[in-house]
Amino acid sequence: MRLGIDIGGTKTDAVAVDESGALAQRVRLATGFGHAAVVETAVTAVSRIGELTGLTPAGFQSIGVGVPGMVDTVSGHVAHAVNLGLERLELGGMLAGRLGVGVRVENDVKAAALGTYHLLRLSGTMAFLNLGTGMAAGIVVDGRLWRGSTGIAGEIGHIPVDPAGALCGCGQRGCLETVASGSGIARQWPTDDPLPVRAVFAAASDGDREAQAIKARLAAGIASAVRILVLTVDVGTVVIGGGLSHLGERLLGDVHEVLHDWERTSPFLASLDLPARVRLVPEGTPVAALGAALVGEN
Amino acid sequence: MRLGIDIGGTKTDAVAVDESGALAQRVRLATGFGHAAVVETAVTAVSRIGELTGLTPAGFQSIGVGVPGMVDTVSGHVAHAVNLGLERLELGGMLAGRLGVGVRVENDVKAAALGTYHLLRLSGTMAFLNLGTGMAAGIVVDGRLWRGSTGIAGEIGHIPVDPAGALCGCGQRGCLETVASGSGIARQWPTDDPLPVRAVFAAASDGDREAQAIKARLAAGIASAVRILVLTVDVGTVVIGGGLSHLGERLLGDVHEVLHDWERTSPFLASLDLPARVRLVPEGTPVAALGAALVGEN
Repeated sequence: MRLGIDIGGTKTDAVAVDESGALAQRVRLATGFGHAAVVETAVTAVSRIGELTGLTPAGFQSIGVGVPGMVDTVSGHVAHAVNLGLERLELGGMLAGRLGVGVRVENDVKAAALGTYHLLRLSGTMAFLNLGTGMAAGIVVDGRLWRGSTGIAGEIGHIPVDPAGALCGCGQRGCLETVASGSGIARQWPTDDPLPVRAVFAAASDGDREAQAIKARLAAGIASAVRILVLTVDVGTVVIGGGLSHLGERLLGDVHEVLHDWERTSPFLASLDLPARVRLVPEGTPVAALGAALVGEN
Repeated sequence: MRLGIDIGGTKTDAVAVDESGALAQRVRLATGFGHAAVVETAVTAVSRIGELTGLTPAGFQSIGVGVPGMVDTVSGHVAHAVNLGLERLELGGMLAGRLGVGVRVENDVKAAALGTYHLLRLSGTMAFLNLGTGMAAGIVVDGRLWRGSTGIAGEIGHIPVDPAGALCGCGQRGCLETVASGSGIARQWPTDDPLPVRAVFAAASDGDREAQAIKARLAAGIASAVRILVLTVDVGTVVIGGGLSHLGERLLGDVHEVLHDWERTSPFLASLDLPARVRLVPEGTPVAALGAALVGEN
């Protein structure tokens, strides 16, 4: 049995995965804020899964943790996990000290990519396109995470595609993330709604032109991300995940429409069959926790 | 001894590579135009290298051919090799019939990528950014070509980066290839000069504003290609090759200047250390023929 934990900005998922890769147990906790609380949340998650499975930490084949931010997978250090209130934390070492066993730490998008790849029983090459606060992709090749030479493979949210676009937090202009992410939507549509993208979709269907334009830019930005992933890595599948993916078929439909429009003017793009490569992550499965449990296999 | 052939639009290079991977023999021929002449050129190349090495076709450990266009590496079929006057040719089968031994066929940019990787004794992940008539990259991972799920990995010339850009031959607007390729330069600077890009550089240094703008867009387009290759695949090295690379340090200097400019406004980009990842392919080595000789190892 393997144990995987996904520490998110508000919720932490933990799962036990059996030998066949199937989900055996699952719990959800509120995530604490700040160094000590984040470590405590993970320790509690291990203990809760331990109660459900009857296993001590040492009884699991491996324990993996997915966490937002920059992760050094060798040292287990986490940096810039702003949502968790962490500037820098030696998460791997601290958890190992508390649990008495080694813990593997991985970036949450990469963990979700790995979990999705296994959940969908894919083969070949896949990108998990995470549309959360930001945009980033996790790339899996033949069942293994593709990290690249410095660990920044898949950071496509900061590829600029419009010199006249909005200024991005990264200092560039017109990045994909400025139109196709939670923060990009929130910047364009100031609202008290905790889910600005739902407010945008609602206003768009009520006929609001500005909301319709924001919605169109979102779909075009996602479609551009798909095109980039195919024309660089040539991924066979792009799975859309992250917070915005909860829009479900409404979002996927918009993206497919953009991709089909492109095919009408470009036989080259039509030959790539982009619409057939794109799908949504299945709702309701904690793919990042699942992936965190599997990180040990890589 | 391995034999590699690179069939270019006007010249064909052929090399013999010894067990250590070193260049043992080398010849250059004019390339014939059309189906029969292209096959004849390759047969002549094998025969000339055979004379120099004293080997019959069956005496080589492998024979590989690099050729422009769409290549099916399994069947040896070549399609859309416009520069060679080929709409469709069963090059692998025809050469095998003439030579009495199997021949591996590979796209010339991919072959050049492999040859460059070995020539420069690189490790990890590299992209060979070919700036010829068009723009495309060949990606090598741990010494092997990365083809992707459908063989179009690295076709970054058709990633649009400016909605207000020029219409591309592929039917899209603002593709990298429209500003950073031989055809892109020729479209913007009509001239009788057989090397329009040299004419542009000359006019730019004479103070021509339009030429300076074209030269600036070329450098920015190449820099954008580098940024895309790093933010997707995270290649450790980008080697600039192809016809435009003959501009040498003048071109590389322009690209480095753009990348350094970007770093001043984006700490994120500065953290990627893009300038240090970019270099020029060494002048004078037939890297595509060298790579074609090594394709058999992959």
